[in-house]
Amino acid sequence: MKKKTENSGNEKLKVIPLGGLEQIGMNMTAFEYGDTIIVVDCGMAFPEDDMLGVDLVIPDITYLEENQKKVKGFFITHGHEDHIGAIPYVLRRIQAPIYATRLTMGIIEHKLEEHNMLNSVKRKVVNYGTNINAGPFRIEFIRTNHSIQDAAALAIYTPVGTIVHTGDFKVDYTPVYGDPIDLQRLAAIGQKGVLALMCDSTNAERPGFTPSEKTVGHTIDSIFSENQNRRIIIATFASNVDRVQQIINSAYKFGRKVVVEGRSMVNIITIATELGYIKIPDNTLIEVDQLKSFPDERTCIITTGSQGESMAALSRMANGSHRKIQIKPNDTIVFSSHPIPGNEKSVGRVINELYRKGANVIFQDVHVSGHACQEDIKLIYSLVKPKYAIPVHGEYKHLKAQEKIAEQLGYDDKHRIILSSGDVLEFDADQNYKIAGKVKTGAVMVDGLGVGDVGNIVLRDRQHLAEDGIIIVVMTLARENGMLLAGPDIVSRGFVYVKDAEDLMDEARNVVVDLMDRLQDKHVKDWTRIKNEVKGALSDFVWKETQRRPMIIPVIEEV
Amino acid sequence: MKKKTENSGNEKLKVIPLGGLEQIGMNMTAFEYGDTIIVVDCGMAFPEDDMLGVDLVIPDITYLEENQKKVKGFFITHGHEDHIGAIPYVLRRIQAPIYATRLTMGIIEHKLEEHNMLNSVKRKVVNYGTNINAGPFRIEFIRTNHSIQDAAALAIYTPVGTIVHTGDFKVDYTPVYGDPIDLQRLAAIGQKGVLALMCDSTNAERPGFTPSEKTVGHTIDSIFSENQNRRIIIATFASNVDRVQQIINSAYKFGRKVVVEGRSMVNIITIATELGYIKIPDNTLIEVDQLKSFPDERTCIITTGSQGESMAALSRMANGSHRKIQIKPNDTIVFSSHPIPGNEKSVGRVINELYRKGANVIFQDVHVSGHACQEDIKLIYSLVKPKYAIPVHGEYKHLKAQEKIAEQLGYDDKHRIILSSGDVLEFDADQNYKIAGKVKTGAVMVDGLGVGDVGNIVLRDRQHLAEDGIIIVVMTLARENGMLLAGPDIVSRGFVYVKDAEDLMDEARNVVVDLMDRLQDKHVKDWTRIKNEVKGALSDFVWKETQRRPMIIPVIEEV
Repeated sequence: MKKKTENSGNEKLKVIPLGGLEQIGMNMTAFEYGDTIIVVDCGMAFPEDDMLGVDLVIPDITYLEENQKKVKGFFITHGHEDHIGAIPYVLRRIQAPIYATRLTMGIIEHKLEEHNMLNSVKRKVVNYGTNINAGPFRIEFIRTNHSIQDAAALAIYTPVGTIVHTGDFKVDYTPVYGDPIDLQRLAAIGQKGVLALMCDSTNAERPGFTPSEKTVGHTIDSIFSENQNRRIIIATFASNVDRVQQIINSAYKFGRKVVVEGRSMVNIITIATELGYIKIPDNTLIEVDQLKSFPDERTCIITTGSQGESMAALSRMANGSHRKIQIKPNDTIVFSSHPIPGNEKSVGRVINELYRKGANVIFQDVHVSGHACQEDIKLIYSLVKPKYAIPVHGEYKHLKAQEKIAEQLGYDDKHRIILSSGDVLEFDADQNYKIAGKVKTGAVMVDGLGVGDVGNIVLRDRQHLAEDGIIIVVMTLARENGMLLAGPDIVSRGFVYVKDAEDLMDEARNVVVDLMDRLQDKHVKDWTRIKNEVKGALSDFVWKETQRRPMIIPVIEEV
Repeated sequence: MKKKTENSGNEKLKVIPLGGLEQIGMNMTAFEYGDTIIVVDCGMAFPEDDMLGVDLVIPDITYLEENQKKVKGFFITHGHEDHIGAIPYVLRRIQAPIYATRLTMGIIEHKLEEHNMLNSVKRKVVNYGTNINAGPFRIEFIRTNHSIQDAAALAIYTPVGTIVHTGDFKVDYTPVYGDPIDLQRLAAIGQKGVLALMCDSTNAERPGFTPSEKTVGHTIDSIFSENQNRRIIIATFASNVDRVQQIINSAYKFGRKVVVEGRSMVNIITIATELGYIKIPDNTLIEVDQLKSFPDERTCIITTGSQGESMAALSRMANGSHRKIQIKPNDTIVFSSHPIPGNEKSVGRVINELYRKGANVIFQDVHVSGHACQEDIKLIYSLVKPKYAIPVHGEYKHLKAQEKIAEQLGYDDKHRIILSSGDVLEFDADQNYKIAGKVKTGAVMVDGLGVGDVGNIVLRDRQHLAEDGIIIVVMTLARENGMLLAGPDIVSRGFVYVKDAEDLMDEARNVVVDLMDRLQDKHVKDWTRIKNEVKGALSDFVWKETQRRPMIIPVIEEV
């Protein structure tokens, strides 16, 4: 160990994306120099459509586990699930402190509490401007704006040079809470020379600037003004505390009581209130049970479900399964959100159901993004002036879009780097780089209590079962001569289920009986062969009759 | 019969949406007067996300079957699947002629051929302006524009009044093929008095006018001009013949050979070519195998897959599984389409894959819609001036959006009618209306050869299997005393599948063995009870260990 440190002049700086740099949103990047690894963010992702029955997805951390002793800390940029969601799973295996700003840490602590891990994880709340030393690294938290407060960019000072990682960010000159992004600090760091900028690409396809969160406040105000005789229900992202603040401000201004509905929103608003990130006027919040004590037009409900999530509060109201809130024709329902790609259809479904209940629905232009658009990105590049552009955050197409922006700003293809998950980007002391290898990464599926035990075979089976169902054939054979003693009994699930289907199963039974007779005649006793023959014969029969391919499982018992 | 006809002054005109008027896109409307029913359109829909393993969805036609003898014809507005796709299934049960314009009929005939039904279905090609008599109805086809040629609106003249049904349409003053929508004719019909306008709502949420298809031609031209040194691959909707025409025009202008790729596109282009709806310059089309004889920059591939459909040609190129076309860094791939709601994510996935292969991808602003926007809709209302506004086509929120437009145009709530599937809208001789009942409608699922045999139980089972997999427990018991002779054997699919899982199955086996011992002691021999106990015990065990709820199927054999 000693020896290595002495050699540190020859050490390389490694940058290794461990999460899904693309597509799947779990954010996690390792920075390694000599004996030290620091990790930026520790996010989870929601399962893709084909990950049937999977609850959530976390990064494969084999590399960190193999280098356990090197890991000196997790530096978290902000409190969104795709940046903090894997913490309870990862910190169970890797011992290292977490560094984050105050609200971010509040949300992390709530999560650790839920997993009974609060006492086993070291944590340090960091202020903007504070520097943390970790081996050869120094990390500075820089104020940014985002759709959650207390977001930070990180300046990572290393022996090879400085890397600026923006986290998710936007440029908001008039934020609802706190100060604008610290452009001066970014400029000052830029002036001293920056090796690489790892900049948020989420909105890199969108031209122009992202509007201030405050513009939404004006829109919400006018909605309240135009709907004075109606109950107002507003759905938005649970974690967008500033949005909730603005809705509460409008509600208060127009003399309404406010109910906050939906577990995740109640959680975050509670944390934000305790830490002082949201100011709620006295006598404004009421419990859902108190709604009936006030006329509809004096109330406002802020709720989860703006993405059409089937179990969220708004969806339950829309389909009539919410136990305490019914949609009425006198309701105005506001979606203060845009559908995240993939959610368009479920959002549309909820809107349709709300309309069917006679409500008025507003779902356009009551939202601004939390991510920087093209001109904002150019601004950051112009302040930081990095040697290398390394687009991060977003799908591959977003990374490519930022790469195009960098190209427009004069970065040639030697100075634009698009990494894939697991790529080991290595900078030498002269700030030259190469991709020096690849470490194991991937998506670990969490299903119920199981972490990583659902693999591709299970998923493939689930897919097959989902598409065509299953037919189970059970037989009992005599041990001595292979005679059929009982069965074949045929059970099906997820397969045709109409009156004719019973005949089909009878015929299927006959197919197996005939086959077994023939096998008996040939003295076939090998179970594997019998099972394969049963499978084949039944599969052919079912395909011919229905053009379907259910999963077929023969089970043989012997007595 | 005679009597009824004599009474016809008392007859009511019934309008009954039989398909999904909302959400699910299968379009089909019955118009009934006395002993006559005519049906407008006969569409299918693609299955919703939760219809696991279902191939397509068609309308429940119980009402038409019960009134078989009354049905005098199917009048088809245009050749898209959501207007013609159910024809092979419906016409197998209902005998009536099909009326449609030439290209529409060409596509229908191709479909009937595939189902070996060409000789059993009567068909009549209709020209714009032609009138067809069917009992008390007279039906006139009126030229419109849409994203497929030969689209028609229908004027349905009835004893009670005239109904104008627009079908899917846009207003295109400069269509690529043929003439603009016949606004004069709509005005003339309007001038004589129209009972109701059933107008396309798909784009009713969008302000302004829908641009002409020709504007896309200019964009495509400039893409060809800016990509002269690259191969160009353009994905678009298979049925958009005008789009294909414009791409071919550009390719020809820039001296490129053209390959058409993707079965559905080849089909429609073949039909359109035979009928003269597309003009392809000589020596322009080549086969895919000839691609290698030309330099990349002299070729252009027009392909299906613009919606990210996993089996379409472009998706196979993107993921490297297309047998004849490989994506190269020198390719420019153009999405001449917008993602249909629900497809955003799969389109994004294909784009990411194409970028990863180094290609250039253009996916914005190379498309215009085939549906009328708000100002176009106002134009039609102002020409037709119906007494009643009946928004059709689109999800419920789109119908509501058109209703708002009608309201702006001065229609009070007595003159705006939003129907649900199965509603029997009844107009009397005085043109007053009421909803006079509801007929059975719904979505019939087609899976393989089965039409309607996949019901809710099957779907629920598939959902369960997909989420949590299945555990099968097989035992052989002695008939005389219920003794366990063989098993329990436990087989699982779609459930955990890792090294620890084997232990879990061993333990599960022990749970069942213990249970069977206890049941034996209590002399329990009732199979139903035994099965329920096994299910309960195993379910509790698995939940405790994994927090999952697989489907559990006990099978008992007796010897």
